[in-house]
Amino acid sequence: MIFPHPFPPADDDKLREECGVFGAIGTADASAVTALGLHALQHRGQEAVGITSFDGQEFYSRRGTGHVAENFSTQDAIAGLPGFMAAGHVRYSTTGGAGLRNVQPLYADLAAGGFAVAHNGNISNARTLRDELVRKGAIFQSTSDTEVIIHLVATSRYPTTIDRLIDALRLVEGAYSLIVMTPEGMIACRDPLGIRPLVMGKLGDATVFASETVALDVIGADFVRQVDPGEIVRVDFDGKLTSLRPFGQNRPRPCIFEHVYFSRPDSIFDGRSVYEARKAIGRELAIEAPVEADLVVPVPDSGVPAAIGYAQQSGVPFELGIIRSHYVGRTFIQPSDSARHDGVRRKHNANRGLIEGKRIVLIDDSIVRGTTSMKIVEMMRAAGATEVHFRVASPPTAHSCFYGVDTPERSKLLAARMDIEPMRDFIKADSLAFVSIDGLYRAVADQKRDNTRPQYCDACFTGDYPTSLTDLAQRENRDAQLPFPANKVA
Amino acid sequence: MIFPHPFPPADDDKLREECGVFGAIGTADASAVTALGLHALQHRGQEAVGITSFDGQEFYSRRGTGHVAENFSTQDAIAGLPGFMAAGHVRYSTTGGAGLRNVQPLYADLAAGGFAVAHNGNISNARTLRDELVRKGAIFQSTSDTEVIIHLVATSRYPTTIDRLIDALRLVEGAYSLIVMTPEGMIACRDPLGIRPLVMGKLGDATVFASETVALDVIGADFVRQVDPGEIVRVDFDGKLTSLRPFGQNRPRPCIFEHVYFSRPDSIFDGRSVYEARKAIGRELAIEAPVEADLVVPVPDSGVPAAIGYAQQSGVPFELGIIRSHYVGRTFIQPSDSARHDGVRRKHNANRGLIEGKRIVLIDDSIVRGTTSMKIVEMMRAAGATEVHFRVASPPTAHSCFYGVDTPERSKLLAARMDIEPMRDFIKADSLAFVSIDGLYRAVADQKRDNTRPQYCDACFTGDYPTSLTDLAQRENRDAQLPFPANKVA
Amino acid sequence: MIFPHPFPPADDDKLREECGVFGAIGTADASAVTALGLHALQHRGQEAVGITSFDGQEFYSRRGTGHVAENFSTQDAIAGLPGFMAAGHVRYSTTGGAGLRNVQPLYADLAAGGFAVAHNGNISNARTLRDELVRKGAIFQSTSDTEVIIHLVATSRYPTTIDRLIDALRLVEGAYSLIVMTPEGMIACRDPLGIRPLVMGKLGDATVFASETVALDVIGADFVRQVDPGEIVRVDFDGKLTSLRPFGQNRPRPCIFEHVYFSRPDSIFDGRSVYEARKAIGRELAIEAPVEADLVVPVPDSGVPAAIGYAQQSGVPFELGIIRSHYVGRTFIQPSDSARHDGVRRKHNANRGLIEGKRIVLIDDSIVRGTTSMKIVEMMRAAGATEVHFRVASPPTAHSCFYGVDTPERSKLLAARMDIEPMRDFIKADSLAFVSIDGLYRAVADQKRDNTRPQYCDACFTGDYPTSLTDLAQRENRDAQLPFPANKVA
Amino acid sequence: MIFPHPFPPADDDKLREECGVFGAIGTADASAVTALGLHALQHRGQEAVGITSFDGQEFYSRRGTGHVAENFSTQDAIAGLPGFMAAGHVRYSTTGGAGLRNVQPLYADLAAGGFAVAHNGNISNARTLRDELVRKGAIFQSTSDTEVIIHLVATSRYPTTIDRLIDALRLVEGAYSLIVMTPEGMIACRDPLGIRPLVMGKLGDATVFASETVALDVIGADFVRQVDPGEIVRVDFDGKLTSLRPFGQNRPRPCIFEHVYFSRPDSIFDGRSVYEARKAIGRELAIEAPVEADLVVPVPDSGVPAAIGYAQQSGVPFELGIIRSHYVGRTFIQPSDSARHDGVRRKHNANRGLIEGKRIVLIDDSIVRGTTSMKIVEMMRAAGATEVHFRVASPPTAHSCFYGVDTPERSKLLAARMDIEPMRDFIKADSLAFVSIDGLYRAVADQKRDNTRPQYCDACFTGDYPTSLTDLAQRENRDAQLPFPANKVA
Repeated sequence: MIFPHPFPPADDDKLREECGVFGAIGTADASAVTALGLHALQHRGQEAVGITSFDGQEFYSRRGTGHVAENFSTQDAIAGLPGFMAAGHVRYSTTGGAGLRNVQPLYADLAAGGFAVAHNGNISNARTLRDELVRKGAIFQSTSDTEVIIHLVATSRYPTTIDRLIDALRLVEGAYSLIVMTPEGMIACRDPLGIRPLVMGKLGDATVFASETVALDVIGADFVRQVDPGEIVRVDFDGKLTSLRPFGQNRPRPCIFEHVYFSRPDSIFDGRSVYEARKAIGRELAIEAPVEADLVVPVPDSGVPAAIGYAQQSGVPFELGIIRSHYVGRTFIQPSDSARHDGVRRKHNANRGLIEGKRIVLIDDSIVRGTTSMKIVEMMRAAGATEVHFRVASPPTAHSCFYGVDTPERSKLLAARMDIEPMRDFIKADSLAFVSIDGLYRAVADQKRDNTRPQYCDACFTGDYPTSLTDLAQRENRDAQLPFPANKVA
Repeated sequence: MIFPHPFPPADDDKLREECGVFGAIGTADASAVTALGLHALQHRGQEAVGITSFDGQEFYSRRGTGHVAENFSTQDAIAGLPGFMAAGHVRYSTTGGAGLRNVQPLYADLAAGGFAVAHNGNISNARTLRDELVRKGAIFQSTSDTEVIIHLVATSRYPTTIDRLIDALRLVEGAYSLIVMTPEGMIACRDPLGIRPLVMGKLGDATVFASETVALDVIGADFVRQVDPGEIVRVDFDGKLTSLRPFGQNRPRPCIFEHVYFSRPDSIFDGRSVYEARKAIGRELAIEAPVEADLVVPVPDSGVPAAIGYAQQSGVPFELGIIRSHYVGRTFIQPSDSARHDGVRRKHNANRGLIEGKRIVLIDDSIVRGTTSMKIVEMMRAAGATEVHFRVASPPTAHSCFYGVDTPERSKLLAARMDIEPMRDFIKADSLAFVSIDGLYRAVADQKRDNTRPQYCDACFTGDYPTSLTDLAQRENRDAQLPFPANKVA
Repeated sequence: MIFPHPFPPADDDKLREECGVFGAIGTADASAVTALGLHALQHRGQEAVGITSFDGQEFYSRRGTGHVAENFSTQDAIAGLPGFMAAGHVRYSTTGGAGLRNVQPLYADLAAGGFAVAHNGNISNARTLRDELVRKGAIFQSTSDTEVIIHLVATSRYPTTIDRLIDALRLVEGAYSLIVMTPEGMIACRDPLGIRPLVMGKLGDATVFASETVALDVIGADFVRQVDPGEIVRVDFDGKLTSLRPFGQNRPRPCIFEHVYFSRPDSIFDGRSVYEARKAIGRELAIEAPVEADLVVPVPDSGVPAAIGYAQQSGVPFELGIIRSHYVGRTFIQPSDSARHDGVRRKHNANRGLIEGKRIVLIDDSIVRGTTSMKIVEMMRAAGATEVHFRVASPPTAHSCFYGVDTPERSKLLAARMDIEPMRDFIKADSLAFVSIDGLYRAVADQKRDNTRPQYCDACFTGDYPTSLTDLAQRENRDAQLPFPANKVA
Repeated sequence: MIFPHPFPPADDDKLREECGVFGAIGTADASAVTALGLHALQHRGQEAVGITSFDGQEFYSRRGTGHVAENFSTQDAIAGLPGFMAAGHVRYSTTGGAGLRNVQPLYADLAAGGFAVAHNGNISNARTLRDELVRKGAIFQSTSDTEVIIHLVATSRYPTTIDRLIDALRLVEGAYSLIVMTPEGMIACRDPLGIRPLVMGKLGDATVFASETVALDVIGADFVRQVDPGEIVRVDFDGKLTSLRPFGQNRPRPCIFEHVYFSRPDSIFDGRSVYEARKAIGRELAIEAPVEADLVVPVPDSGVPAAIGYAQQSGVPFELGIIRSHYVGRTFIQPSDSARHDGVRRKHNANRGLIEGKRIVLIDDSIVRGTTSMKIVEMMRAAGATEVHFRVASPPTAHSCFYGVDTPERSKLLAARMDIEPMRDFIKADSLAFVSIDGLYRAVADQKRDNTRPQYCDACFTGDYPTSLTDLAQRENRDAQLPFPANKVA
């Protein structure tokens, strides 16, 4: 069923983390704390937000499109979400289209009582599981892959909710960090490879869970530890915490792109400061791809830490050669009489007084479609730069993500379509270099990639997917019957 | 789960029909026709409205709170609902609370394809069926009893959709007029007793279904016939119409309150003009309860036809002694300094110049809580009436409805709490009379009530419920275990 | 300057009173009382509403488009308008276009302090006065003729506000009922001919003013008397009331159309019940233009009282042959496939069961463009009426109003374009008759029109305008220079 | 008159430039270009925005609260503003309170035709002039000081609009950069001291004016020159440009705070790159107030350029020790159970991994109330900083601005209340230093302050106001009569 989409996708030429999750149990301010926590995770999803709370009797829910502040900053909004437990979710619309029914937390009345879930990640066999469930009479209320988990819990034949959840997760393949609420308390868990992040903190007697540590900072909670890959953490209303590890031991493979771009620089991801990791990537890049230049200029804001690292390593001064407007958002009506006006200017503007007559090294975190990079190089030249060298703080992004990140289809990825030299020509830079995959690993894991047992999920760079991709394989099977097969993942 | 309710119930002291339904198949304007048809049924439900359409490939849906005109009067709204088939629904919030999830048509992706349903009525064993379905793993997306039907269809083991629907309806008890859409076409059906209305019409080659004939008038369609009690009418995209009667023959018992209040006076219900029926009730009332007076004054607007009948029979002149404002709606902040201001004045005002020094007969269609009646009598006296005689064009409303009508709990019904004389005293009238149950039947069926096989459902007056009330019985069973049993239906 | 208009004019084929005014002084609930009072006057103006209050120190103001209930039903709205004095205004947009700047009360900071004014009427030399004021350096904030009065007050050389107001009104020609607020109290006044209505009431110790008595009823106030034509009533914060009559004695000429259509039937206008006046017009019509018929059918709702009078006089039964929907408003998207659907159906529907095979007399209050009348006659025939006789409870409307009523330009008035027989042919009735001008006067003044000193302003019927029309004369002067003069008022 | 204020002031502890202006003449896209230009000036005023256009016949206007993108990004909004000339305004609410009537451009119908004006600045004798105008009968529609200029133009006795404008400006004292539209074309002018900025550019054949050069960059226009202090530039529809200098020669005194904080770093102000000026201030600060430390940390975003300058001069590495959220805005409901949660966290968060165990130098552009500085120092310590040294890239802000900048009353300015050491103690820093006034001048003017003829207006630092302050003097006069005089400017 089709609902109109209120937010047409901005082509901002970045991979986009699709979700952030937050939960709190054990405080009378559970929903107010959750609203603040989600606000700190706003960069992980800006299209829609929802919070569900439980007051010992009933579950309460409020959802909306737009930002957390637009939906949860009033006394009324918070007063309508009473109780000592609450969880929330911010999202982009990847799997599932838009419409409020896909806004999480999802909720169901199961035989054992209410069941609410907020999910960051993507189930790579969701379509296959869903078709099977529908055949048995299940009715889906959303197109979200998360709902598959709820139906698997609902139809599991185990007696307790926790066993039903474990039963459900055994059938599921892909990436998931989940925060679940039941009348007994909160359950937080992470897929066996720990692809998506999830951390735990304490706020007084309350326990909180969040996608990133920055949410703990903002609410004033103390960081306790991450939820481990494959771990299920249960917290009841007395504050008792139980940890289960029903899936045995796997070597974790957290998403390396959290370090490159997704996480906020003031978060600690996988035991390492994101800011320091980005600076380290910049330093590797300066070693691998040095260039004689007058200025190191970051593409703001995501390129800033790597640019600082590059500048410190190379000795070339760090300068703000591009100024970013704080007031981006809607697209404007473009005046018709000049091809020179375009959207990139509203977001980024050359610092003309600084750039003129200079050789500059531009530092960006990644190149996806390449269209923005091209416009920024052009803007630098228009502002008088004599040379523009482009350095990218990640390897070429050549493969789609199937674990909860909004990637363009492969044919739109610049690095899937061409090699480095044609890319340089496309963006019209004087030189172009990406950090090597081993350079990246040195920066974020202190050693090169272990190719037999990689330390991270880096499928977007390497095409080495750590799980089966059942839905994709089935689609390719079907496509193989067609005279002209659809574009395939290598 | 609890969503905040945007429209607090107006205590307007009337029973409220909870829904109107409309469907059209076979015209490129299906959704525009449906919007107009629902607009003509707006009096049957003013809190929320939804339309779903099907264009041969996809189902499209749009819902909103408020009136049809607020949600479906723009080109955009209609353009977003393409296709040759559409159905819609207007509702009050009785079973199911508010929130857009309960706004119909409800929709589900079944294994055989999309399935949308708009329902007028109430399933009296919905809770029992729902509990059983949830035990088997079904997940409900709404608290609407209508969703029970969808789950029964989804889990039926018959192969075709029509057989699954019949299978589902066999398990269901209560009142329902349904309009169903599947990729094969439209299905309209009515419960075996035909408690709630449903009629069929033709608009050129298109077939339309509606709760009342007034919707056919407004769109310019010709009335064909009513959908018979227990009948299932199927219409495909070629216009072929099939009629099934899988539940055998029952003596129909349509809701007598459609004649008393629910239907618009310009509708034809059960073969009889509603306006003429109401006038006939007024005439019966004049015969049964005559009074010497100067003026017959209707409580506008619903009391008008009965007042005309009463005036014609009695010879006492019909006059507009109460003027109704067209601009009711929201409650205002009441000035604090005078007890004399109240909401009833914003809606009804005494026609002072006419009333002063007169003996008046007030005619209203029914008395529910009695609070409005009391205020209107008081208003008449304040305007100078010397005598106020109250005549009611229905018998005392002493029992709750379980078939899709929003009745207050029994303890709030004035006639469940007291006899006629105390009621007269409560509303402070000089005399009070209700039409007799036999008088009512003479007016709407040309003969007295057949007590062995009543011609109508009149449970709100008699307590004689034509179906089992399984959910109610179970609740009473549970209540019987408690030290203080809850209030019971007699 | 042009602001976009949010409410395109509904062609509802009626003259429209352009304003209602209300004021209260001497109660802590002044703004709440004013909101209720305006709500009762909503029929006099539905496009915009404003209230201004004064708390002894400051003036407070709130305005909005739409109805009173949409703008002034919340606690916040009322709390933002503190003080013991408030006045408000509802309006259509005639003189002055839309935009919140034209929403009254208008306000200005004069040298003597704040000055707020709400105006019902129209100044017929406003353009001429305005041009002169602008030449002297006055800056107008609205296009409203009311603002001319404020500038005249501001630039008057008299020392006191009351003398400045009198000075200003001496220069003004046309119709006005004004409610003025200054830091000293409230001033209510009416033009020397009393064209537009204004009444005074008491609510406890508070004094209130309103366009119609119905507003007094709704707030629970007692009617005291009308403000006399040419009278200026001043009320201070101690409740002291002073009456001035600076314009000498004129024979009043109140607007006769208040009786025909503008006022609510439950109001008392010019000492006479509007409902009784309308019934009396219906009786005159039955005497002047009898016809053999089966039913008297009002065009609801405005035709109802005259139809009751016609029925009582003629003995032909009064019946609701047309049912009016309560849910009109926005225009819907018309389905394209049938010419038979049109807007009139959404508002009025034939009571088919009653009409079929009958000879009917339709009663309407007036005919303006005639388009609605034509559709209603056609609707009666489509419902099976064998004869349709049209009777109109006012004389032919053949002239524009320049005193605050929204009339179409003369070339659009059916009666300005053709005689009775062509009008009958245009609306396709079997017969057509209007009440005579003398019949109308007998009904509303108990005697025929005094042609030398008419008792009412009846310019819309007779073209006999009781004041000069300076702006119009100047426009005609200009037009006379053009090769093709614009349409002229006879 | 008081209208409710939709945007309560955020206590963001910064001086706030109150307006930005933009105008374009000579392009069919005038209003689209103006919308884009205003968007680039959004940092100069975020509460309200308006655009007025002229199509050769009529003026069109649209205003709204909130951001440019919220009000002017739709096709409809732009289509409603046709014509080859347009001007717009963004504002905070300083003089004049909120309410759409104070949103500029202001417009008046003068005898010579329409007159629209957008104003950046503040008239320091506005109250005095206004009282005089009101005494003569002028009616003000807003509380804006800008309207005084319009009334002076309206009542001037000179024959042409340009002479009337010059006549008006001779009476006016204070700061103003104006863009005026008349049916003859556009007039841009700047007060004799050039306190507020205004630049001119060319976009093809069109001429544009803007508060800052960044608006020219964003629309793709070429910078031509600044409008000179005391200059009046007239542009007609043929593109002819005339320059008048009716006020003779004054030594200009542009606002030095444009370099410190108001202007975007990518603008060129008074012939100098704002970014370079800020870096130069940082370098001066490093020379004047060196400190042994591990990191230079800017308070983002306004402290960044000065921090880069400080780091380059001192050799201490520049690091992002505070991360700023992009999603600030509304205030959230604060959870009640912890004093540690506060608003500053939602905006700024310590980069904990970097700060811990380090001695840091914090660089901010200015200190106003000091409350934010105190919280940021505390945040640094909570994140583990061993020493926190605070360096401010402007002298102590000890005086209010009367030229169009929103300053707190003097008693709220930290530097007006105490000396450096108590300030250090108040914010709990280990050391605190401000750049000296001469250091600031060296950075922005290449030489120390010329105390006899200062190069800039620096009254907020020195109390040396370059114009009379008539309104203030009169208020102080009045206050002097009171037993307890109000707080005075030194």
